[in-house]
Amino acid sequence: MGDMDIALDFDPESSTPLYRQLYDSFKAGILDGRFAAGTKLPATRELARSIGVSRITVTECYERLLAEGYIEARRGSGTFVCKRLPELSLFASPSPAAAPETPAANLLPHLSRFGTAVNMLLNRPSIPGIIRLDLHGPDVAHFPRKVWARLIAKRMGRSGRDLFDYAFDSRGDPALRNALARYLAQARAVLCDPDQILIVSGSQQAISLTARILLNEGDRVAMESPGYYYAGRTFTSQGAEVVPISVDHHGIKVSELQKHKDIRMVYVTPSHQFPTGAALTLPRRKALLAWARANNALILEDDYDSEFRYRERPLPALQGIEPDAPVIYSGSFSKLLFPSLRLGYLVIPKQLYLPFRTAKVLADLQSSTFHQHILADFLIEGHLESHLRRMRTLYDKRRSILVRVLREHFGSKVTIFGDEAGMYLLARFRTNLTEQEAWERAHDAGVRTDRLYWPPGASETQHGYVRLVFAYATVSEKELQVAGRRLARAFLD
Amino acid sequence: MGDMDIALDFDPESSTPLYRQLYDSFKAGILDGRFAAGTKLPATRELARSIGVSRITVTECYERLLAEGYIEARRGSGTFVCKRLPELSLFASPSPAAAPETPAANLLPHLSRFGTAVNMLLNRPSIPGIIRLDLHGPDVAHFPRKVWARLIAKRMGRSGRDLFDYAFDSRGDPALRNALARYLAQARAVLCDPDQILIVSGSQQAISLTARILLNEGDRVAMESPGYYYAGRTFTSQGAEVVPISVDHHGIKVSELQKHKDIRMVYVTPSHQFPTGAALTLPRRKALLAWARANNALILEDDYDSEFRYRERPLPALQGIEPDAPVIYSGSFSKLLFPSLRLGYLVIPKQLYLPFRTAKVLADLQSSTFHQHILADFLIEGHLESHLRRMRTLYDKRRSILVRVLREHFGSKVTIFGDEAGMYLLARFRTNLTEQEAWERAHDAGVRTDRLYWPPGASETQHGYVRLVFAYATVSEKELQVAGRRLARAFLD
Repeated sequence: MGDMDIALDFDPESSTPLYRQLYDSFKAGILDGRFAAGTKLPATRELARSIGVSRITVTECYERLLAEGYIEARRGSGTFVCKRLPELSLFASPSPAAAPETPAANLLPHLSRFGTAVNMLLNRPSIPGIIRLDLHGPDVAHFPRKVWARLIAKRMGRSGRDLFDYAFDSRGDPALRNALARYLAQARAVLCDPDQILIVSGSQQAISLTARILLNEGDRVAMESPGYYYAGRTFTSQGAEVVPISVDHHGIKVSELQKHKDIRMVYVTPSHQFPTGAALTLPRRKALLAWARANNALILEDDYDSEFRYRERPLPALQGIEPDAPVIYSGSFSKLLFPSLRLGYLVIPKQLYLPFRTAKVLADLQSSTFHQHILADFLIEGHLESHLRRMRTLYDKRRSILVRVLREHFGSKVTIFGDEAGMYLLARFRTNLTEQEAWERAHDAGVRTDRLYWPPGASETQHGYVRLVFAYATVSEKELQVAGRRLARAFLD
Repeated sequence: MGDMDIALDFDPESSTPLYRQLYDSFKAGILDGRFAAGTKLPATRELARSIGVSRITVTECYERLLAEGYIEARRGSGTFVCKRLPELSLFASPSPAAAPETPAANLLPHLSRFGTAVNMLLNRPSIPGIIRLDLHGPDVAHFPRKVWARLIAKRMGRSGRDLFDYAFDSRGDPALRNALARYLAQARAVLCDPDQILIVSGSQQAISLTARILLNEGDRVAMESPGYYYAGRTFTSQGAEVVPISVDHHGIKVSELQKHKDIRMVYVTPSHQFPTGAALTLPRRKALLAWARANNALILEDDYDSEFRYRERPLPALQGIEPDAPVIYSGSFSKLLFPSLRLGYLVIPKQLYLPFRTAKVLADLQSSTFHQHILADFLIEGHLESHLRRMRTLYDKRRSILVRVLREHFGSKVTIFGDEAGMYLLARFRTNLTEQEAWERAHDAGVRTDRLYWPPGASETQHGYVRLVFAYATVSEKELQVAGRRLARAFLD
């Protein structure tokens, strides 16, 4: 749920029209080979959404590229970069060496099925001057750098090699796994011993490894709908078939899951469903576990932000409800501490530990020992709890300001969901705009919210309503108030 | 090429016989579910080699486990953990929660083909008191910690969020990619601009991503034989068929490669072949590139340690010999700086950049921004070159001591290969011992060397000779001298 980067350069402040900037950017990418012949372009709607411009802008850009012979539309299958390009200057950009002796071959046939599936833009640009309510990160400005710096200095001063060398244990630093097992037992009621913990490089690696270890091409994997974009993309890129399961105010509808056959795995966010914010009720948790046992399926529980709960104690993890639950539990320090730490963890049933461990070694040998040692010290010295308390207070304040601001401007036209916990909320507005229009108007007014992600084949519109996701954790009080006014102007005028 | 961790606990100093310790360790693992019913055990030879005991020890342990009904031999296919275990105490270890209400299901059928392929032990134990000449790491004790600490302190003191937050650019920090492009052009004659560089988490991730992006199950991938163990395991775990290609003193035999059909990719270490140390000659480099173009294959060039060259300038990279060479170039900072940095890079043909970039995002979002910023500062301030000079001097000294010590003790019975560069050398001893025996004797005498890895289906013994790999970079002069005496005692008595 991180912020992604620029794939196409453009500047909304520029006097050059957006469609023209987009056209220039695509043309340059085609000419310099970044978008190779045969590459499929994203659908206009998808691109508009992902880069934050109106669909009309994208359509104008595509039409111009089509007219000039850079791209071609193939009926029923989409728009592609042309094999024969209109310019002679195809490789005219000066090379640091001599000119090529042989023409550059078309390398795209080299891609595996996975390679073909990931030959796509996945990133969103950031645009200056806009209030970012789509960033799901923590506010790192409030991270206790001084404590962290002191822990680093303490370790750096020692003569030992352990901070810099290969890991003694590729499963993760033993001190970290011990501290984490205690923390997870206390804070999340997870049932595990340290030997079930595998340290990984953030929750995206947890999802990716789990999908590879459990899913063959063509296997069916269920996930919440709406759900987490990168999980859906991970599953489809590996050739799995995603089965979307609806979500209501009590979390994933287990009764709907029960209607499907041959589901090998289900991906869920039970503590705080992403992005509706619903907490899975205890009866549904039990039904989900019973379903998994009866159907020989495994559950991947992504517990990404449940520590931030504002009204009551955090819900215990699904994993800990029953001993030997068929659950692979995943967590991350990206939201708790800071994302560039790149540390997360899996809690794995003992029988399945070995393949996860080996898969991690083959994926990237190990996660950084440097960060693991500092993190272990941070946990052992008790800094996590005080940091969490401070951040909970900060986020709760921002949350309540955002709720108040939205209610001030929209009154009964807005309903807030999922703000009991986490770092974002879902706001439903009563309006005749479509979600696309609403999102674009907000964007044009200077507020970038997040959108709902629907797995392939699933989508749902509520007539007369639009839903937008507000990730407020990094946004100051003042910006939240400005955002409220901008949204009111965008939706109510 | 990192040092791996303990999978089976045992202590060579203990009064308990090794076979008994191994037996206890296996039995415990089977009873607590780590080695689940149906898990295939490694072959005796392979296990003996990987954990550094004699084959007889492993055989005795297996025979006892067989006799007691923990494991079963299936003719022609190997040894497996039994489905029905002899003890009633199968899940008797006390659980932190209540006893399980339902029996634990067998979870192994959940594994995908990849999951099944990685359900194996891949790790080696470290044993105290032995001189480790099998560790392919740099000597991190000589890393300039003070410089690094100063760079961290400088960045930590700033108010910006960039050190802690999600990456602005998931391809890697732009300053780092710029500095790296300059460095690679100057030091390695790599042809690239920064937009072809993708920052990854070490060279193992580079290999893993490349294999996934280019290879389908069943595809044929060629690699050097002997070659790099983790590359071979990566390819086979993904279902690719590994085609071993012989290596001589001029590197991989391109003529042998030319005899094979339908090879999609070849993995090579041309600057300093792992583990023979051969440098691929220019005629073979050109032949390799021509072969790749003619056969529509791609080359993965792993340039893991070529900066450490002692007699002449480093050879330029294969990637830079021709413009638009069909080469994916991979390098790492694990050997140059320190392994726990977990930073490496790929230089990718522009046409293939997008799938690599997206695959990286789906694998783990990004590599640590924290480390990337510090590394960029380190490069920009010019510390890499002075560090390399110092380390080259240090390693060269250790190298020459090891060569002298071996010649002193073995005279004309030893021939040294591949010591012009890198952090290891290959020593060939004239002896009637087998390689297994020699390795075991050395081990029993207190010297642990590395072994040759042969891809599946390939192996080669030279009658009257054994070859062992000596990774000397982390071993002090004194230890090298002790190692020489121990080896002489082991081989010559």
